[in-house]
Amino acid sequence: MFENSHESRTNLSELGEFGLIDHLTKNFSPKLESTVKAGGDDAAVLNFEGKETLISTDLLLEGVHFDLSYMPLKHLGYKAVMVNLSDIYAMNGTASHVTVSIAVSNRFPVEALEELYAGIQLACKIYNVDMIGGDTTSSTSGLMISVTAVGYAEKEEIAYRSGAKPNDLLVLTGDIGAAYMGLQVLEREKEVFKANPNAQPDLDQYTYIIERQLKPEARKDIPPLLKALEVKPTSMIDISDGLSSEIIHLGKSSKTGMNLFEEKIPLDPAVISVCEEFEIDSTTIALSGGEDYELLFTIDQKDFDKIKGNPNLTVIGHVTEEKEGMHLITRANQKLPLIARGWNSMKEKDN
Amino acid sequence: MFENSHESRTNLSELGEFGLIDHLTKNFSPKLESTVKAGGDDAAVLNFEGKETLISTDLLLEGVHFDLSYMPLKHLGYKAVMVNLSDIYAMNGTASHVTVSIAVSNRFPVEALEELYAGIQLACKIYNVDMIGGDTTSSTSGLMISVTAVGYAEKEEIAYRSGAKPNDLLVLTGDIGAAYMGLQVLEREKEVFKANPNAQPDLDQYTYIIERQLKPEARKDIPPLLKALEVKPTSMIDISDGLSSEIIHLGKSSKTGMNLFEEKIPLDPAVISVCEEFEIDSTTIALSGGEDYELLFTIDQKDFDKIKGNPNLTVIGHVTEEKEGMHLITRANQKLPLIARGWNSMKEKDN
Repeated sequence: MFENSHESRTNLSELGEFGLIDHLTKNFSPKLESTVKAGGDDAAVLNFEGKETLISTDLLLEGVHFDLSYMPLKHLGYKAVMVNLSDIYAMNGTASHVTVSIAVSNRFPVEALEELYAGIQLACKIYNVDMIGGDTTSSTSGLMISVTAVGYAEKEEIAYRSGAKPNDLLVLTGDIGAAYMGLQVLEREKEVFKANPNAQPDLDQYTYIIERQLKPEARKDIPPLLKALEVKPTSMIDISDGLSSEIIHLGKSSKTGMNLFEEKIPLDPAVISVCEEFEIDSTTIALSGGEDYELLFTIDQKDFDKIKGNPNLTVIGHVTEEKEGMHLITRANQKLPLIARGWNSMKEKDN
Repeated sequence: MFENSHESRTNLSELGEFGLIDHLTKNFSPKLESTVKAGGDDAAVLNFEGKETLISTDLLLEGVHFDLSYMPLKHLGYKAVMVNLSDIYAMNGTASHVTVSIAVSNRFPVEALEELYAGIQLACKIYNVDMIGGDTTSSTSGLMISVTAVGYAEKEEIAYRSGAKPNDLLVLTGDIGAAYMGLQVLEREKEVFKANPNAQPDLDQYTYIIERQLKPEARKDIPPLLKALEVKPTSMIDISDGLSSEIIHLGKSSKTGMNLFEEKIPLDPAVISVCEEFEIDSTTIALSGGEDYELLFTIDQKDFDKIKGNPNLTVIGHVTEEKEGMHLITRANQKLPLIARGWNSMKEKDN
């Protein structure tokens, strides 16, 4: 889509590798005290003053993780940063820095990459994160983005996946399933557009779910909220692959069982109505949809009063003994084994 | 080449994304005290006890940065780590951790990726570095490796590119040009092999230069050597793109001029003889070849006695005032402007 959306079109070869990275990052200026040196040297230099350093990395590939026919490049840049910051927040930490590397084919003009970097820059600005380096190179096909996020936390604040204990409460931020249903709507519209390029889609009623897919927001607010509430999560993870898959990660890492209550799963009304329209079970979407970038964590029961009634937080289940296994308790009070059926790029491509 | 070199061939889809990364990294176990948590969580957790954190990242793409027809996968894994550790050493720091992400098409069996990770693991072992995470995903074509290296240094030890002062000495470790000439030999043999698959190449005389291309070693030894000699480089960079390009980086960052003496450039005899064979000027190769992963740095003149006679270190020039520009002083005492003609993946592909 971007091929037609720019009046000017500068070929990548006009800038060369060094010129390109300089050009794309010229508006990025480090702001944090912890950034001693960002870019322009062999490595970035950071100072976390004795706090622990957190590092996470993710790859996003065209044709596997995103489809440029409905993902604007600015949104893609924004989302690539979100996906990685989310991993730092899922440690109950503060995200502070990112490196962004891209491999890109010559079909992309410089102006398209400017859009991508505008989205990266916006994400850095809103999330108070410094970009500290990266690499650009040519690819033989498509666009690939590799982001490494860096953050920090006091040792005693860090929430691992492995600390859940039986009788802890299982808590979810926000609501889930919307990002996946947003993708379904976008894919349906793409097919409609292919069949009839003059069709004028009315997507107003889908605004929320499409935004959740195209412009997800990582839960930067949750670690400071928990600190203010004086709650230290016993375990924590972010929802990238789907709720059931993430619950299983926490249970396996903590060597516990888990009970999830279907009736407690927070769904936005827009998700419920679009699931009806698509004739899909909304619980299935909540369990397996993925890409919501909400946080899932466990807390000691004694902390329940501290989080009770907070509109950001929903208790959706509790931790059990390992031998009890991991289950979904349905509205009809059936006990079904939880199955990881998260989004799996490797299998999707092979099948 | 690897397609035929394995008896068994396990399709990637048999493992899936989570299974694959678990399988490939099962033999990696963190050893450093600074590694609080590696892998199996949303982010890795590191503790550098108040030292500054160093971060560097690089992408390697098939068809752009490497050619699997002569680059064995184990060597590729090793080299991908070296390229990144070299950036940490170039800050005069200690490399301690890497994350490795790969995007890979289905034409690679699991056994091929095991080779790749065997090389990564060997590099981590020899260089005393912990692997702390990464990502694997499918690609529509080829193999892509993204490595982020992490290290640390005391604040006052860090050598930036920007600290050179007029009259400082310009010092190079080891010798250069060999990696580039190794590549020329490998490319020639590939053409010979295409023309006559039964040809038995005798590559004995090229062992050193081919090893420098296929299995480069980063200069882990140099930061501790400099510390032992009580020399703090005023500026420092590694040789990835070629000597002239790196000298220009130091000069531009430091706002100085530079004089490089042709007669001082350290060349291995094998490089000189293969340059004669290929009828290429060896100085041109030294200036523009790249991929040597030696370190280039500047020191105060008063430190000359401390490094004098050290077989690892050669004084190849000196720093001048910015207005004097950057020059090569030839054997015939001509003064030629230094030009950055380093290897440039973006331009190479476009031309």
